[in-house]
Amino acid sequence: MSDDTKIFLSESEMPQQWYNVQADLPSPVPPCLHPGTGQPLTPPDLMPLFPMGLIMQEVSQERWIDIPDPVLDLYKLWRPSPMVRARRLEKALGTPARIYYKNEGVSPAGSHKPNTAVAQAYYNKEEGISRLTTETGAGQWGSALSFACNVFDLKCTVYMVKVSYQQKPYRRSLIQTWGAEVFASPTDRTNAGRGILEKNPDSLGSLGIAISEAVEDAATHDDAHYSLGSVLNHVLLHQTIIGEEALKQMAIAGDFPDVVIGCTGGGSNFAGLALPFVREKFAGRDIRLIAAEPTACPSITRGKYAYDFGDTVQMAPLAKMHTLGHTFVPAGIHAGGLRYHGMAPLVSKLVDDGVVEAVSFSQNPVFDAAVLFAKTEGHIPAPETAHAIRAVVDEALKCKETGEAKCILFNWSGHGHFDMAAYDAYFAQKLIDCELPQADIDEALTHLPQVGG
Amino acid sequence: MSDDTKIFLSESEMPQQWYNVQADLPSPVPPCLHPGTGQPLTPPDLMPLFPMGLIMQEVSQERWIDIPDPVLDLYKLWRPSPMVRARRLEKALGTPARIYYKNEGVSPAGSHKPNTAVAQAYYNKEEGISRLTTETGAGQWGSALSFACNVFDLKCTVYMVKVSYQQKPYRRSLIQTWGAEVFASPTDRTNAGRGILEKNPDSLGSLGIAISEAVEDAATHDDAHYSLGSVLNHVLLHQTIIGEEALKQMAIAGDFPDVVIGCTGGGSNFAGLALPFVREKFAGRDIRLIAAEPTACPSITRGKYAYDFGDTVQMAPLAKMHTLGHTFVPAGIHAGGLRYHGMAPLVSKLVDDGVVEAVSFSQNPVFDAAVLFAKTEGHIPAPETAHAIRAVVDEALKCKETGEAKCILFNWSGHGHFDMAAYDAYFAQKLIDCELPQADIDEALTHLPQVGG
Repeated sequence: MSDDTKIFLSESEMPQQWYNVQADLPSPVPPCLHPGTGQPLTPPDLMPLFPMGLIMQEVSQERWIDIPDPVLDLYKLWRPSPMVRARRLEKALGTPARIYYKNEGVSPAGSHKPNTAVAQAYYNKEEGISRLTTETGAGQWGSALSFACNVFDLKCTVYMVKVSYQQKPYRRSLIQTWGAEVFASPTDRTNAGRGILEKNPDSLGSLGIAISEAVEDAATHDDAHYSLGSVLNHVLLHQTIIGEEALKQMAIAGDFPDVVIGCTGGGSNFAGLALPFVREKFAGRDIRLIAAEPTACPSITRGKYAYDFGDTVQMAPLAKMHTLGHTFVPAGIHAGGLRYHGMAPLVSKLVDDGVVEAVSFSQNPVFDAAVLFAKTEGHIPAPETAHAIRAVVDEALKCKETGEAKCILFNWSGHGHFDMAAYDAYFAQKLIDCELPQADIDEALTHLPQVGG
Repeated sequence: MSDDTKIFLSESEMPQQWYNVQADLPSPVPPCLHPGTGQPLTPPDLMPLFPMGLIMQEVSQERWIDIPDPVLDLYKLWRPSPMVRARRLEKALGTPARIYYKNEGVSPAGSHKPNTAVAQAYYNKEEGISRLTTETGAGQWGSALSFACNVFDLKCTVYMVKVSYQQKPYRRSLIQTWGAEVFASPTDRTNAGRGILEKNPDSLGSLGIAISEAVEDAATHDDAHYSLGSVLNHVLLHQTIIGEEALKQMAIAGDFPDVVIGCTGGGSNFAGLALPFVREKFAGRDIRLIAAEPTACPSITRGKYAYDFGDTVQMAPLAKMHTLGHTFVPAGIHAGGLRYHGMAPLVSKLVDDGVVEAVSFSQNPVFDAAVLFAKTEGHIPAPETAHAIRAVVDEALKCKETGEAKCILFNWSGHGHFDMAAYDAYFAQKLIDCELPQADIDEALTHLPQVGG
C-alpha cells in the first residue's frame, strides 16, 4: 500500500470517457414526463432549452461516452484532481480505518461544478448557441458556469436569488470576474420575475423563482439555452470523471474502498464519485455507497419515491425521484447547495434498488466534523462537503469500536472559502439543528402530482 | 518539451533540504544591528523572541539545511505544489513566450506562507515553547501561523490590525477556525496597545502597532515566542522549497527559465522561487530575476539601500535593506501583503549586487493582468500575486514584439478568494493608481537612523 499522502495521476492517465450507469442498471430509470401532458418526454420537447448533444446524453444507453478533446483540454486546468489519504484525520479519530478523499476543491470555481459546466458550454457552443442562462442560489453553480462560458466565448446570464446576491457579494464578484452578467432575482426582465415583483416588490427571491426566470429567458430567445447544474442524467454523467479517476488512483494506492460517501443536494457530486463504484458493485465487489444529506432537506431519508415537478412553479418536467414535494421550502441552512426538494432520478433509482443508502445530519454535528477536518487536514471544507465528512467520521468511529480496518473514500466536493460566515455562526453557537416535523413533510407530499407509476 | 499543462512531482521527489544562498554570495550580507546599541546582533540578542534553531538558520553559512521530518510530513498536505504551463494565457497574449507558474495557492491557507509557518512552529515546539505571537494585516500570515500552530499543538495569539479585523471578517474567521486567538489591534493587552488607545481610543491600528504588541507579548511571557512571516533570512530559507521544486519540475518539462518573476512585499515569496535560480545564475546560467512591487510602496525601485529599523516604532533590529524609511506609510492599496517599507536584506543585497532587478506597477494595470489571468487560466489570483502576473504579461508582450520565444517562470503566490472586494473595486473603476510624490519619499528617508556603513 502506498505511503504517499497524495495520489496524483498524470494528464496522460486522465480518463478519456464518461461512464453512463444507465447501461448497467438492472431495469431502466423511469422516463421524465411532460409537465403539461404527463406523457414521457421526447428529445424534441427539450430542444428549446438544451442542445442535441446533451439531450442525447440524457437518454443514452451507451456505457462509455467520449469526452470531447476541447473539454479534456479544459479539464487539464485542474484535473486529474488529487486523491488524498487523510492520515492526520485518521490519527485524530484513533480509527483503524483508512480514509481517502477526492479533492474537487482545486478547480477554478472551487468545487466539482466545473466538470459539467465546461461540458455543457462546449455542446452548446458546438450547436451555435451564443448565450446560456441559469439560476444560482449560493453562487457555486453560477460561478462555475460563468467560468465555463468565458472559456468557450459564450455569454452567460445568471439569475441569483436576491437574498444571496445581497448576503454573498463575493460569489457574485467571482461570477462577474469570469464575465457573466448577474441579476438579483426576481428581476423585471421576465414575466415570471415581474409577476412576483407586482405581488411583492420586496421579494428576496427563491431558487424556484430564479429557475423560472432563467428558463423563460432561454425559452424566449433563440440564441440562448438553459443550463442546470445537477439532477439531470447528463450532469451526473459529466461528473463521473471523478470516480473514474478515483478508481485509477485507488489502484496506484494499492487499496480499494469498502465505503464510498458523498453529500447530496441534487445528487451530482455524490453520483460523480459513486457511479463508477456502482459498476464495481454490480460486478460483484462488496461496497457500501452512502449519500449524506441535511436533516433540513432529507429527500432520500424521509421523502417519497414518486413523480414530482423538478421546480416549484411546475414548469419543469416531472421526474420519478425521492422528493419532499415541489412546494417544500427547506430551512435556511448554510449548505445552500443541498436545499433541493428532490433528488436526481438516477440516484433515486439506485436507492430504490437498494444499491445506495442514505444518512442525514443537522448543522452542528456537520460543522463539528468540518472543523475537525480543517484542524487535521488543513483545508476548509464547504458546508455541503462537511455533510460527507460527518458521515465519514461516523463510519471511522464505528471502525474504532469494531476494530475493522475499513477503507473509506469520499468526495471533498468543494472548499468553504466563500462560506466563512457559516463557520462564524458555528463558533458563535448560532447554528440551529433543524428538527423537521413529520407534519410538514406530510403536508408537502399532498401536493405531489397524480401522474406516473 | 512536455505537452502536459501541469507538472507534478511525487512526494518522494520532494526536496529534503532548504537552500541557503548565503553560502554562495560573493560577499556576505551586512549584519543586522541592535536597535539600542547599533552593534551587530548576536544570537543571544534574539533569544527572547526566537528559538535557537531559527536563530542559527538566520546566521548559517551552510549551503543546504535539512528539512526536519515532521515538517516534511506536513508539507505533504499540499506539497510538492504543481508547476503549471499557462498555455491559455500565452495564447490570449499571442506571445511566442512559454509561461509557467508555481501554484502556491494550493496550501491550506491559500498562499506560500505556510512553508515557513510550519517550520517556525516546529522549531519553537522543539524548544519547549507553548505559544507563538504574531501580527497580521490582511490576514494571510495570521491564518498561516494559526494553521501551523494548530498542527504542532501550540497556542497562537494574532494581533490583527483593527481596520482589517473589521473589514476582512472572513480571514479572521479562517484564523479562528484553525484555533488561534485573534485580537483587534490596538488592544488593552499590552503597554504598546494601551499607550495608543490612551491617545486615540478610536485608533484603527497599523501593522507597526500590531508588531509592537506581538513582540511585547512574546518578550514579556517566558512560554511565548514571536514569529515573523517575511524579511528575515530564515523565513526566505524556508521558502526555497518552492524554487527547488521548480528546478526539478523544469527538468521534467524539458525547459528552463530565461526570466524568473515574483511579487515583493517583504520579499519571501519572490526569494523562495528565485534564490535557487540565483545559484544557477552564479553557476553561469543566463537568467533574469525580476521583483514586482507596487508603485505605492516601491522600496526597491525608489527606496535607498541603507540601514533602517524593521518596524515603525524602532523596537526591531536595524537591517541594511532597500527602504522607504520606517516612518513611511504606504497608500491603502488592496495588495496589503506588499505594504512594507523595507525589503528583505538578502533580496536587497542581490539587487545591490546587480543580480536581481525590479519593476513597479500601479493597481489598475495589475488588476487588468489579474482578470486576464482569471479569464484564461481560471484561478483567481491574490492582488499581491497579480503584481507578478503584470510583470509576466509585460515580458511576454515584449517577446511578441521581438519574436523571442523566452521561457518565463513566476510564483503564483496565492489565491484571491478572500480579496474579491478588490476585484469589485476594480470593476467599479474605484481603484486608484498611486503616483507617489518624490517629496514624500525624500521626507521619509530623512528619518533613517545614522548608523552602519
